[in-house]
Amino acid sequence: MRYAVLGTGAVGRAVADKLASLGHEVVVGTRDPQATLARTEPDGYGNPPFSQWQASHEQIRLETFADAAASADAVVNTTSGAGSLQALEAAGAENLAGKVLIDIANPLDFSQGMPPSLNPVNTDSLGEQIQRAFPEVMVVKTLNTMNCQIMVDPARVAGEHTVFVSGDDTRAKKAVTELLISFGWPASSVIDLGDITTARGTEMLLPIWLRLWGALGNADFNFHIQGAHTGA
Amino acid sequence: MRYAVLGTGAVGRAVADKLASLGHEVVVGTRDPQATLARTEPDGYGNPPFSQWQASHEQIRLETFADAAASADAVVNTTSGAGSLQALEAAGAENLAGKVLIDIANPLDFSQGMPPSLNPVNTDSLGEQIQRAFPEVMVVKTLNTMNCQIMVDPARVAGEHTVFVSGDDTRAKKAVTELLISFGWPASSVIDLGDITTARGTEMLLPIWLRLWGALGNADFNFHIQGAHTGA
Repeated sequence: MRYAVLGTGAVGRAVADKLASLGHEVVVGTRDPQATLARTEPDGYGNPPFSQWQASHEQIRLETFADAAASADAVVNTTSGAGSLQALEAAGAENLAGKVLIDIANPLDFSQGMPPSLNPVNTDSLGEQIQRAFPEVMVVKTLNTMNCQIMVDPARVAGEHTVFVSGDDTRAKKAVTELLISFGWPASSVIDLGDITTARGTEMLLPIWLRLWGALGNADFNFHIQGAHTGA
Repeated sequence: MRYAVLGTGAVGRAVADKLASLGHEVVVGTRDPQATLARTEPDGYGNPPFSQWQASHEQIRLETFADAAASADAVVNTTSGAGSLQALEAAGAENLAGKVLIDIANPLDFSQGMPPSLNPVNTDSLGEQIQRAFPEVMVVKTLNTMNCQIMVDPARVAGEHTVFVSGDDTRAKKAVTELLISFGWPASSVIDLGDITTARGTEMLLPIWLRLWGALGNADFNFHIQGAHTGA
């Protein structure tokens, strides 16, 4: 498979690295590749400049959102939630149509101060906004409820823990579930919540995730739904 | 201890029954005791009429919100979230002042259709609204993230699972944690998230809780924070 990973931050790098290690062809998409490569300072989260990361990932090319999406079989959105719709517009509806779009972004809103709130929230979600804006795309929301290192290495957290999947297209959710299994997720850890409106539920886990991060002092934790299989 | 449990629904009954079984004196508070006792039909959730429940719990008296709160050492709010502030106003700030108020309610808003949304949400919470409206009360938000049968019988769900505590007063949270332990919660299952603003996080678990209930087909599950103790 050929994947376009949109976004050059820690989540994009973790997912791109994992996909490449599994033998997939991976292109990372960004608004302006030259500007991304010209940066020499760590980003706002302390990640080293992208050029430094790419030096050890030479097989992963950096292209514009549109070029990355155009040549891909499937697309992963790891851009910041506030910029996701704009990034996907730049990728181009025609380059996304008919493809699975794995949406990992959360609509964190830092405009109200810290900790961030969510926008949209409650009666809408970013996953739904993307699905409405790109009706020809099969959006699957997943992996957005944990630290990016756990996304691609679930064994980092001991014991059983959960990854949620939301989306309108059953075949797309099945394909994404197979990808998650290839990432190391046991099939029993994947919970299909239902249609894309269930992305409200997973995006609304972020406030408690952020508080847990503060209370626990580290991000090496994940939600587990205990008792989930008693009714199965 | 003498507890006032405000609310006559399934949560109030489960908590009142548990408190009484542990040897506490328990009074249930309601807006209009005569009206509550006069009902002969199941409530909107299918619970039998209160008079029927009370027939097998004769040691638990039913009083007005104000009478129940006035004589209690501590108060438990199990009223519906949309009616909680009004119920607590009826209980009376003077009857609540200086007491621990355990808030189990969730601000579910059914006005937008099913599944319910939350109001307040995101930049505020019911727990915070109650603390602001009754500054002399020590509000501790807890137990609001699970089915009421699990609240008072955590062993109902096999394996470790989590109960969250939020509140501004450290001594009040300590007292509530001891009560939770007496309910059967292992001390290691209690996570203190921080001040009352962290109630936003636990109330915002309701949307995914409701979707999980639908996806799993039963309510015998709970959230567990896997890896929570790796940094301890």
